[in-house]
Amino acid sequence: MRHESFDELQQKLQLAFRQGKLLRQAFTHTSYVNEHKRGSVQDNERLEFLGDAVLQLLVSDYLFKTYPKRPEGELTRMRASVVCEPSLAYFAERLELGKYVLLGRGEEQLGGRHRQALLADLFESFIGALFLDAGIEKTKTFLEKHMFPYIESNDFGLLMKDAKSKLQERSQHLGLGAIDYRIVEERGPAHDREFVVEVSIGDEGFGVGKGRTKKEAEQRAAAEAWGKLSR
Amino acid sequence: MRHESFDELQQKLQLAFRQGKLLRQAFTHTSYVNEHKRGSVQDNERLEFLGDAVLQLLVSDYLFKTYPKRPEGELTRMRASVVCEPSLAYFAERLELGKYVLLGRGEEQLGGRHRQALLADLFESFIGALFLDAGIEKTKTFLEKHMFPYIESNDFGLLMKDAKSKLQERSQHLGLGAIDYRIVEERGPAHDREFVVEVSIGDEGFGVGKGRTKKEAEQRAAAEAWGKLSR
Repeated sequence: MRHESFDELQQKLQLAFRQGKLLRQAFTHTSYVNEHKRGSVQDNERLEFLGDAVLQLLVSDYLFKTYPKRPEGELTRMRASVVCEPSLAYFAERLELGKYVLLGRGEEQLGGRHRQALLADLFESFIGALFLDAGIEKTKTFLEKHMFPYIESNDFGLLMKDAKSKLQERSQHLGLGAIDYRIVEERGPAHDREFVVEVSIGDEGFGVGKGRTKKEAEQRAAAEAWGKLSR
Repeated sequence: MRHESFDELQQKLQLAFRQGKLLRQAFTHTSYVNEHKRGSVQDNERLEFLGDAVLQLLVSDYLFKTYPKRPEGELTRMRASVVCEPSLAYFAERLELGKYVLLGRGEEQLGGRHRQALLADLFESFIGALFLDAGIEKTKTFLEKHMFPYIESNDFGLLMKDAKSKLQERSQHLGLGAIDYRIVEERGPAHDREFVVEVSIGDEGFGVGKGRTKKEAEQRAAAEAWGKLSR
């Protein structure tokens, strides 16, 4: 990956890192470091640690202010459904962060660039780098533009607003088979029902989601499947 | 509890809340709200939700910068041992926050003012209120003064620096019996040993701590016991 790529990324996201090194580190997967031992290449794992905490706070602050009447337990559940692997991978994909990650050859061949766990980590390390470079307020502004508008609340938690339609688009783009949502489990009493939905594409299972409604479970399953599909 | 108390607290901590209401809310336990339904008394649980995330971030940032060579996994373990119930209760006690909490009668009679879980929650809600009132930088300055200097790292995590001596002081002050530390379990292979230590005061168990060394486990057990003892 050439250095210009990071210029392209910054242009696209309308950001200008003062410390280009930090941005590069955010996109340096540990598999890349293992193949480039010379020099002082550092992987993105420490930035991921920091970015996770930045996200926890900024999402908490957003939820606290957006839902002034909701009790603590509900806010905690909502936060957990935003700051989790499928959701963070979804946002990484929206921003096409996977295009820029520096990978080792093995990880590349295994499709690491599109792995949900890797993308979620990447979103965290990117946010960690942005926080170190620009501070908490600018990071908040970034999330207000690229993350918060895409989360929607229902009575029981948060959803990725358009995960189902996004999955549809992607699947068509890749020429994959038909998408099917299927309830695999319904449990709990009527007033506290939980649905488990599996989404399959051309007969292959791609994701599972839980929710208090069928629609909610479908959106969550779609978000998971979306994270798994390569562009 | 009279209103003057919060003035006293602010003086002691050298803080001046612009929004006195927030400070009062931070110290309002849900048991108090249940007994004072009239008016718009709000409990501290939502502030606790926010404060937890503020602590996660500020402790992460502190560890990230203080230990530039430590890998992500170690930072995660260190953070977990700082932002946890016994540790947060310990800091609440250092600042004597329990004195100011507004409790319902039942909770008061049960000694709630000195309960570890309540104190840990109180530290979180106080930090949440400070964050809302004064912003992240002032909250950081506060923790740099009252929290960070009291945590110390060894190779495997963080300790409350002086939990054993603090427990000793408190126990003497209360005229309790002798303090005894006893290894109740040693597990794991030699290179990844874990010790479990129980501390008892006058033959009664007061806390259990785990650690990679006996000393570490003792400090953790002491921190737990400390949180349980009333002043």
